Amino acid sequence: MTTTRQDCLHLDAQDPLAPLRDQFELPPDVIYLDGNSLGVLPRATAARVQQVVADEWGRDLIKSWNAAGWIDLPQRVGNKIARLVGAGDNELVVADSTSVNLFKVLSAAAKIVADESRERGPQRRVIISERDNFPTDLYIAESLCRELGWDLELLEADDIGQGLNEEVALLMLTQVNYRSGRMHDMAALTAQAHAAGVRVVWDLAHSAGAVPVDLRAAQADFAVGCGYKYLNGGPGAPAFVWVNPEHAERFWQPLAGWMGHAAPFEFAPGYRPAAGIARYLCGTPPVLSLAALECGVDTLLAAEPVGGMAALRAKSVALTELYIELVDERCAGLGLSVVSPREAARRGSQVCLAHAGDSAAYPIVQALIARGVVGDFRAGDASTPDILRFGFTPLYTRFVDVWDAVEQLRQVLQSGEWSEARFNQRAAVT
Amino acid sequence: MTTTRQDCLHLDAQDPLAPLRDQFELPPDVIYLDGNSLGVLPRATAARVQQVVADEWGRDLIKSWNAAGWIDLPQRVGNKIARLVGAGDNELVVADSTSVNLFKVLSAAAKIVADESRERGPQRRVIISERDNFPTDLYIAESLCRELGWDLELLEADDIGQGLNEEVALLMLTQVNYRSGRMHDMAALTAQAHAAGVRVVWDLAHSAGAVPVDLRAAQADFAVGCGYKYLNGGPGAPAFVWVNPEHAERFWQPLAGWMGHAAPFEFAPGYRPAAGIARYLCGTPPVLSLAALECGVDTLLAAEPVGGMAALRAKSVALTELYIELVDERCAGLGLSVVSPREAARRGSQVCLAHAGDSAAYPIVQALIARGVVGDFRAGDASTPDILRFGFTPLYTRFVDVWDAVEQLRQVLQSGEWSEARFNQRAAVT
Repeated sequence: MTTTRQDCLHLDAQDPLAPLRDQFELPPDVIYLDGNSLGVLPRATAARVQQVVADEWGRDLIKSWNAAGWIDLPQRVGNKIARLVGAGDNELVVADSTSVNLFKVLSAAAKIVADESRERGPQRRVIISERDNFPTDLYIAESLCRELGWDLELLEADDIGQGLNEEVALLMLTQVNYRSGRMHDMAALTAQAHAAGVRVVWDLAHSAGAVPVDLRAAQADFAVGCGYKYLNGGPGAPAFVWVNPEHAERFWQPLAGWMGHAAPFEFAPGYRPAAGIARYLCGTPPVLSLAALECGVDTLLAAEPVGGMAALRAKSVALTELYIELVDERCAGLGLSVVSPREAARRGSQVCLAHAGDSAAYPIVQALIARGVVGDFRAGDASTPDILRFGFTPLYTRFVDVWDAVEQLRQVLQSGEWSEARFNQRAAVT
Repeated sequence: MTTTRQDCLHLDAQDPLAPLRDQFELPPDVIYLDGNSLGVLPRATAARVQQVVADEWGRDLIKSWNAAGWIDLPQRVGNKIARLVGAGDNELVVADSTSVNLFKVLSAAAKIVADESRERGPQRRVIISERDNFPTDLYIAESLCRELGWDLELLEADDIGQGLNEEVALLMLTQVNYRSGRMHDMAALTAQAHAAGVRVVWDLAHSAGAVPVDLRAAQADFAVGCGYKYLNGGPGAPAFVWVNPEHAERFWQPLAGWMGHAAPFEFAPGYRPAAGIARYLCGTPPVLSLAALECGVDTLLAAEPVGGMAALRAKSVALTELYIELVDERCAGLGLSVVSPREAARRGSQVCLAHAGDSAAYPIVQALIARGVVGDFRAGDASTPDILRFGFTPLYTRFVDVWDAVEQLRQVLQSGEWSEARFNQRAAVT
């Protein structure tokens, strides 16, 4: 029996997470299904940023490093993010970008493996990743391999387990794939890697704030993640980095900047790394962007009294299941296929579709945006199709939004309006 | 003949740069002489940041990457900074922190030297810097030397010329010393280094926006700089990086993130560096902080119609000369000595003092702050004294501010109030 729009309104009325939506400034007449690319603006952010600009910077100037706690922001916001990803207190800091943090942890992980190899052999000089991992992850790993004379091997998601042999030093994976939304089993793959003597670096860009993550329970080695997707930190918000306390003090990471020094304000000429995760800090943090990130993270912590990440995940699964069900039923025969895994446990908080038409995905996405349904397009290549990508953020997406989004999609396809020339003009950033 | 307060008011009345001060939100009852640590808030910034937050992010969301030009911000703001430091169009980008950018350019410079050494010898494996260069510069160089098996040699400022022998690969210097304000002759030292086969990396943290810099005329190799000091970009504003076009495409820098890819939105699995300086970009930039930086840079470009950096430098010299003159005359016999070079051509836009009293510098600075004169304290060590540091930013510092700042200093010293216990309580960040 088809779910009706009325059913969706009923689901929203009964949803204990529904009031969380009031935390956000959502543009009217838009169904925003792109929170996996850029999260929406929390209501608290504008006032908080103004406070930082006008009062902390403008009025109090340099003394705000102490008086307003700027100097502690990387740790303070880090400790809040830690609660979302199963990390302990003082194990995670906000710093730099995901790309820069990947370089830090891959470099440190490589040193640990090289050290262990020297002691007990064998020589491990390969980093393994997934062929369609997010490109910046692959570029950073490729670059490090060039520096070290190592190899980067890219495998299909299903072949990663078999790839873990005794030449492999590191496994670097994004838990939820940015294109397909396919989700790896972090605990199982980490255990499998460890059994093969391989260290694991997890990118949580599409996990943090979207699916429950338990870094400690999984005994992960290293993790990085993004502040501007499900954490709602704003465009280009700083990223985060976590290192298992077992490894945190074993090596310098190479970006040995003053904020990672044991005593930055001694201005000593020699580097002495700070204890614990603080040595993964580098330069002076961008305070305005960091303050905005804290507001974003707070919108997720606001879910703690109503079930936290487990409750958000349950709603996320319900939203994506509903979307797939409605696309199957209401868009049947219109050329669409579901690219994301149909099994909820193997899917993050997004659903990707392909269309049978040649080069149809891009203009369909544009036609939907013109109707106020914002998803995005990701180009395919020889082995993967072009996709229409839709993120479902349980903090602010309603069941009725899902129904309406599918209805708009049905109308775009049925009308054929997507084939109009105006929808085919590609923007620089897609 | 002593300059009087009335003389200073007269100088301000005749100063063609005086109206530039109206660009800033200055706290009342404060004489701010710490723009070399954190520049003040431009009037335009709060509204611009609100626009980015509320309209570009909140309302327009993901489409602002194109529609609001977020994607071009690193280049757009970079091109503005280029005008202040003698760089050409599309030769300089805003990215990451000074520390991270130093790692990029030192890594690339090291590759260039290693390459040239292989072809023509000799083997060069030493980085030279100044013993009291800003610590983060030394830490990053130390870290890279560990990775490469190179040595970092720290020399006194006067000995650098003689240190340039055939074992030296790179010379890394901050043009204006963060403690003493001593300024190196960029063109002369660069020429001397090149004659010895040494490449030069300049840190412009205390130069950009403070003194005229001409990177192209000096034939410098690499430069980095800071956004939150004289550029008024706000706390932790992103930094900048310039590479001589002759070198820009010779090597990858190791932080090969997606924003430095030739076509980031192709999402190709292999890294292909962008043409020119764009390959020195790495991850997604912090848009809020970057937008604030643009407002700060604009306050300096506003000086172009009234003489630009040359006029700002002339005023800066006049301010620091006046400060030294008044300290000499009005604080004579009160235990102070001038640590900065007395020759204006060898001094940046700051003046540092020492006090003969044991551990006196810190409480004197605190007592001045309590009276509304904000400078800062930097601890000495075995070979350098504790200092009182005062920055003079010609965009917003008046001649009468200089007179009043010296008068407050005189009163603090003459009254002995600095020796009260309350001024000796050290804050975490000094």
